[in-house]
Amino acid sequence: MARVLTPRAEDFPRWYQDVIAKAELADNGPVRGTMVIRPAGYAIWERMQSDMDGRIKAAGAQNAYFPLFIPESYLRREAEHVEGFSPELAVVTHGGGKQLAEPIVVRPTSETVIGEFMAKWVSSYRDLPLLLNQWANVVRWELRPRLFLRTSEFLWQEGHTAHATEEDARAYARGILHDVYEDFMRQMLAIPVVVGRKTVRERFAGATSTYTLEGMMGDAKALQMGTSHELGQNFAKAFDIVFSSAEGRQEHAWTTSWGTSTRMLGGLIMAHGDDNGLRVPPRLAPIQAHVMIVKDGEGVAAEAAKIRDALRDAGIRVGFDDRVDTPFGRRAVDAELKGYPVRIEVGPRDLAAGNVVVVRRIAGTKTPTPVTGVVSAVTAALAEDQQALYDEALARRESHTVDVSNVDAAIEVAATGWARVPWSAIGAEGEAKANAQGVTVRCLTRADGSVPGSEDEPDLIAYLARAY
Amino acid sequence: MARVLTPRAEDFPRWYQDVIAKAELADNGPVRGTMVIRPAGYAIWERMQSDMDGRIKAAGAQNAYFPLFIPESYLRREAEHVEGFSPELAVVTHGGGKQLAEPIVVRPTSETVIGEFMAKWVSSYRDLPLLLNQWANVVRWELRPRLFLRTSEFLWQEGHTAHATEEDARAYARGILHDVYEDFMRQMLAIPVVVGRKTVRERFAGATSTYTLEGMMGDAKALQMGTSHELGQNFAKAFDIVFSSAEGRQEHAWTTSWGTSTRMLGGLIMAHGDDNGLRVPPRLAPIQAHVMIVKDGEGVAAEAAKIRDALRDAGIRVGFDDRVDTPFGRRAVDAELKGYPVRIEVGPRDLAAGNVVVVRRIAGTKTPTPVTGVVSAVTAALAEDQQALYDEALARRESHTVDVSNVDAAIEVAATGWARVPWSAIGAEGEAKANAQGVTVRCLTRADGSVPGSEDEPDLIAYLARAY
Repeated sequence: MARVLTPRAEDFPRWYQDVIAKAELADNGPVRGTMVIRPAGYAIWERMQSDMDGRIKAAGAQNAYFPLFIPESYLRREAEHVEGFSPELAVVTHGGGKQLAEPIVVRPTSETVIGEFMAKWVSSYRDLPLLLNQWANVVRWELRPRLFLRTSEFLWQEGHTAHATEEDARAYARGILHDVYEDFMRQMLAIPVVVGRKTVRERFAGATSTYTLEGMMGDAKALQMGTSHELGQNFAKAFDIVFSSAEGRQEHAWTTSWGTSTRMLGGLIMAHGDDNGLRVPPRLAPIQAHVMIVKDGEGVAAEAAKIRDALRDAGIRVGFDDRVDTPFGRRAVDAELKGYPVRIEVGPRDLAAGNVVVVRRIAGTKTPTPVTGVVSAVTAALAEDQQALYDEALARRESHTVDVSNVDAAIEVAATGWARVPWSAIGAEGEAKANAQGVTVRCLTRADGSVPGSEDEPDLIAYLARAY
Repeated sequence: MARVLTPRAEDFPRWYQDVIAKAELADNGPVRGTMVIRPAGYAIWERMQSDMDGRIKAAGAQNAYFPLFIPESYLRREAEHVEGFSPELAVVTHGGGKQLAEPIVVRPTSETVIGEFMAKWVSSYRDLPLLLNQWANVVRWELRPRLFLRTSEFLWQEGHTAHATEEDARAYARGILHDVYEDFMRQMLAIPVVVGRKTVRERFAGATSTYTLEGMMGDAKALQMGTSHELGQNFAKAFDIVFSSAEGRQEHAWTTSWGTSTRMLGGLIMAHGDDNGLRVPPRLAPIQAHVMIVKDGEGVAAEAAKIRDALRDAGIRVGFDDRVDTPFGRRAVDAELKGYPVRIEVGPRDLAAGNVVVVRRIAGTKTPTPVTGVVSAVTAALAEDQQALYDEALARRESHTVDVSNVDAAIEVAATGWARVPWSAIGAEGEAKANAQGVTVRCLTRADGSVPGSEDEPDLIAYLARAY
């Protein structure tokens, strides 16, 4: 059989590109750095959106939509924010056939414009908390684009909230971090993220605390899968988000923001893909069970349709492939590439014995199964393989995370995995040294794995790694 | 009671702005022509999206995502298309801190970039039809913006398909027109749209046929609620969408495109709103039944919560208002403004008699109802009032549509309604004359209401009106 993909061990980035192309997930857009998300990729994103959207609403936030275009002057109001973003901006100078009086920025994120409207909508403590979320596209100019991971335009959700107290803002930012993001990533994406605090050097432009979720990819590099920020009163002061407290005082609100993006699709590919292609966690998969007719024969099409309907009736998301004029081998390779968790191969020979073949993409098994047992076999496989994928990712994370005691050792470990180091042995100076070698502090955690309230707490652990 | 809204009869456009502001549906963005869709407005849009998305998928189209940024040169490839759009374009000239070598256009619509990718993905007749849809934001510079109706940025879905034959493309464009759009607008939006064909003068830039759905607003003006286009082989030739036919010939594909947008929200407001605010059709409403505690009293909160849960268990989307420290009158005005189809007022006095008050926004009734009968009363009200809203809109359309026989009479009728005129009595010359008076040919239909295949068919009817 011809080699379909570059093996991961040979060239991981090349393998990644191959999977995206062959599984028809995405393509480069005509403007450098932009991306076309193809139907197979978009269907996965839609499932991510829909699950995450339910969790965000359960956390009390309401969806809204703010404009793509932001006056350039808005970004300048928060000094750190403008500094963080100005090299990445796309600027509109002409509209409606004329040069514009003030240049317009295509949103790189919406703290500024949402801050402006929060100021209008909030006047009393009764208006707080104000909990907003939007699903949108944003633009950050990329010189070295990589599909899903770094693209000039990407899709995301961005949450923005305003609170009466710092404690309330902190509790909300952390609630999103753990109850929405961490739970989604573990339960749906099957990725055992490490959750921690970014160092001052790594935190978001304008934030007082940035929390992050870091996933380990198949090559043991790290990917930042999502972030949640406390913005203190920085944006409230820049945009005048003021409320009268229960005691009648005028106070600045405390705001948060938090986001996850199509980058998670890149994480999914790199965390779970193998040399045969994508592997999609069953709970997330747009197609969980793919019914394939091997070749025509008496009653084969009818039996395949019956199996499809029975699976669908059991609440399973089903694909159907009856393209018998295409060689079966090619279609099977394609199903492997696309990573359907289970496929059910229906052919005349097995069917004569009352069987079909159940192929599990994650367990790697092919089992002749009586037609009457297909639904229960598939249901069990989907549950087991969701867990198996998580366990495999966790085992890799554990075997590739090494405890060391100083920055030089951490830089060495980062060539092949993640280093856990006492933060006191790194500090700002060690961090700069690591950065110079292409290694970053991914996050800080407490010894028990919980998220610290400041980087000055004693006995913190730093995770150092190379990252996407 | 203070007047909440400008009455429609006094100043319809002002009433429209008032409703949007007071029902907290949207706000003007900081860049001229842009729009902030607030949670109450976005929740309605989400319901539109979700219902429509199901219909589009049932029509076989798959969702994908194409880039926001399009090279300026793409738009020039189809002559009519560039001419149609160039005065409306927003142009990015700077990215990543530098002037760009080629200016980039922010998509006004995606025929061109999708055409480019269809050309890559299609090679054989087996790849056809290729049925794509995307939910996205687009930008068309507006000098006279009006919230939801004409904004520089708006949200929409745009479908793009490629077919092997003209017949297949035509059947698909018309299937979307009737089975997706018309059915959605009648069944969900409760708007009895007139469906017809645009004249050559009104059709989409680059199309060979444009089909439209026209709704009558509360002031008897027309609103184009959606369009579906046959693009012939124009884009296939401009972008080289070529396939080898079953007979082995190289042929250009036939493409279609079709779109509906947040403009439908404007149509919903103007078709159904009254002097007390918005009226949302029950099937569409994010909140169908709003349970309100009139004032505190023994057992009131517990009973209200029980009613809320019973409604929710019956599959009804429920809101809950227990803000008893805000005067009830103010909250009732707000509920009228927001247009919840039914509200259930729970207060100590009625409750002592075992009753609550069921207030129907559309029927305009207030009925004391035994607690045990609330679910069935609400269920019946929602079904009846969906129909009542449609019937009311249909009655208005019929009473404000007048048959006339020439263009001068049509122009006169258009001051207060729609004119139906034999197309043979108008023609290109009459159309130009009407246009000069601010009146347009909204669409052409056959005498039996069906959609003509060309404007040259005999005995066609033209609808002339003023329009948004």
